[in-house]
Amino acid sequence: MSSPQDTLLQLFATLVARKSAAPETSYAASLYTKGPDAILKKIGEEAAEVLLAAKNLERGGTHGELVHELADLWFHTLVLLAAYDLPLHSLTQELERRMGRSGLDEKAARAAGEH
Amino acid sequence: MSSPQDTLLQLFATLVARKSAAPETSYAASLYTKGPDAILKKIGEEAAEVLLAAKNLERGGTHGELVHELADLWFHTLVLLAAYDLPLHSLTQELERRMGRSGLDEKAARAAGEH
Amino acid sequence: MSSPQDTLLQLFATLVARKSAAPETSYAASLYTKGPDAILKKIGEEAAEVLLAAKNLERGGTHGELVHELADLWFHTLVLLAAYDLPLHSLTQELERRMGRSGLDEKAARAAGEH
Amino acid sequence: MSSPQDTLLQLFATLVARKSAAPETSYAASLYTKGPDAILKKIGEEAAEVLLAAKNLERGGTHGELVHELADLWFHTLVLLAAYDLPLHSLTQELERRMGRSGLDEKAARAAGEH
Repeated sequence: MSSPQDTLLQLFATLVARKSAAPETSYAASLYTKGPDAILKKIGEEAAEVLLAAKNLERGGTHGELVHELADLWFHTLVLLAAYDLPLHSLTQELERRMGRSGLDEKAARAAGEH
Repeated sequence: MSSPQDTLLQLFATLVARKSAAPETSYAASLYTKGPDAILKKIGEEAAEVLLAAKNLERGGTHGELVHELADLWFHTLVLLAAYDLPLHSLTQELERRMGRSGLDEKAARAAGEH
Repeated sequence: MSSPQDTLLQLFATLVARKSAAPETSYAASLYTKGPDAILKKIGEEAAEVLLAAKNLERGGTHGELVHELADLWFHTLVLLAAYDLPLHSLTQELERRMGRSGLDEKAARAAGEH
Repeated sequence: MSSPQDTLLQLFATLVARKSAAPETSYAASLYTKGPDAILKKIGEEAAEVLLAAKNLERGGTHGELVHELADLWFHTLVLLAAYDLPLHSLTQELERRMGRSGLDEKAARAAGEH
């Protein structure tokens, strides 16, 4: 099992590499070829599936199904970043900045970083 | 600047810690108190805002605005994970598994992991 | 050309009739058979496509494409109503009630109804 | 109680009239002033709320709550039509056309129109 960093960096590197691949060789490559709207449509779809999977937890749905849909949603946001030539750390830095900016969550975030 | 891993682990640890905080002390704590529907509603909203920010790139919108909305979307998916007591690595492991399973993206993923 | 009423009532009557049709004979019948999640997923998808089509107006997209996506969205909300055995007028009555309730829009709504 | 036609035409006429109203006098007028993105964001939000309300039917949610969210969704699609100066019949004609075009649903639609 890789650390979260390894996984995200590795997956993102793969997705960036797929930008120069032939569309028929990779799902990600086929999305880049179709263009941003195809990627954005998938983000809309996967967000809807996250909602449904979460609500289905109350009626026999599994955590695995919810995690599956969340992974699909993250996957397509990473494809979007790559499509616009944005680096992964632009996203994680923004998450970092908002921990600092929020005020409310700032102290706990710092505490978590100190040990 | 932290690594993506540091940021995500630190933010997630903060969000988990917020589960026992008073709702008025933290935005995340207020979401947990409102319940899953409030979190899911935000995921739906933020997905819509990602779509709009991406389309606005074609007309003067900035990469910063898109990254801002993507960070909002990831933030709320992390709150959802925490709300359901799911660990962060359940999500990253699923992303890892799908690199291996997809067939199409598998080879590049392995190559990226070899160095 | 039918009036909006004729069209909606006729379409809704068709969709209700499709509840007892074999799934392979009709798109609506296939959705009922798949169950509410399939219909809800389509509503999420079509909402995303409305957003994209509206934003594409700013870059060469046509009104026809936007109207097409809006019609898809309305179509699937009508399928949802039928799936839950709710009458069409439950929706239009709610729209009517909110004109009366809103305060802000009430006067114009009444004026429009008086002539 | 008005017919569905009366309600939709009356509501739509109201919403069109609100295009020249001061933003502080009407919710719809405030949306026009904020611009298309504000309307589109609401469509994304309301679609998410339809999903949640429908899933909540399985756990004590009411038909009234679902109908309420569907009415919110239709309301904002009508605001969008008005914002782009599109007539209501462009939407209902498209719904009509697709009944005719679908093949599968065509016969029942015609039958419903014959009596």
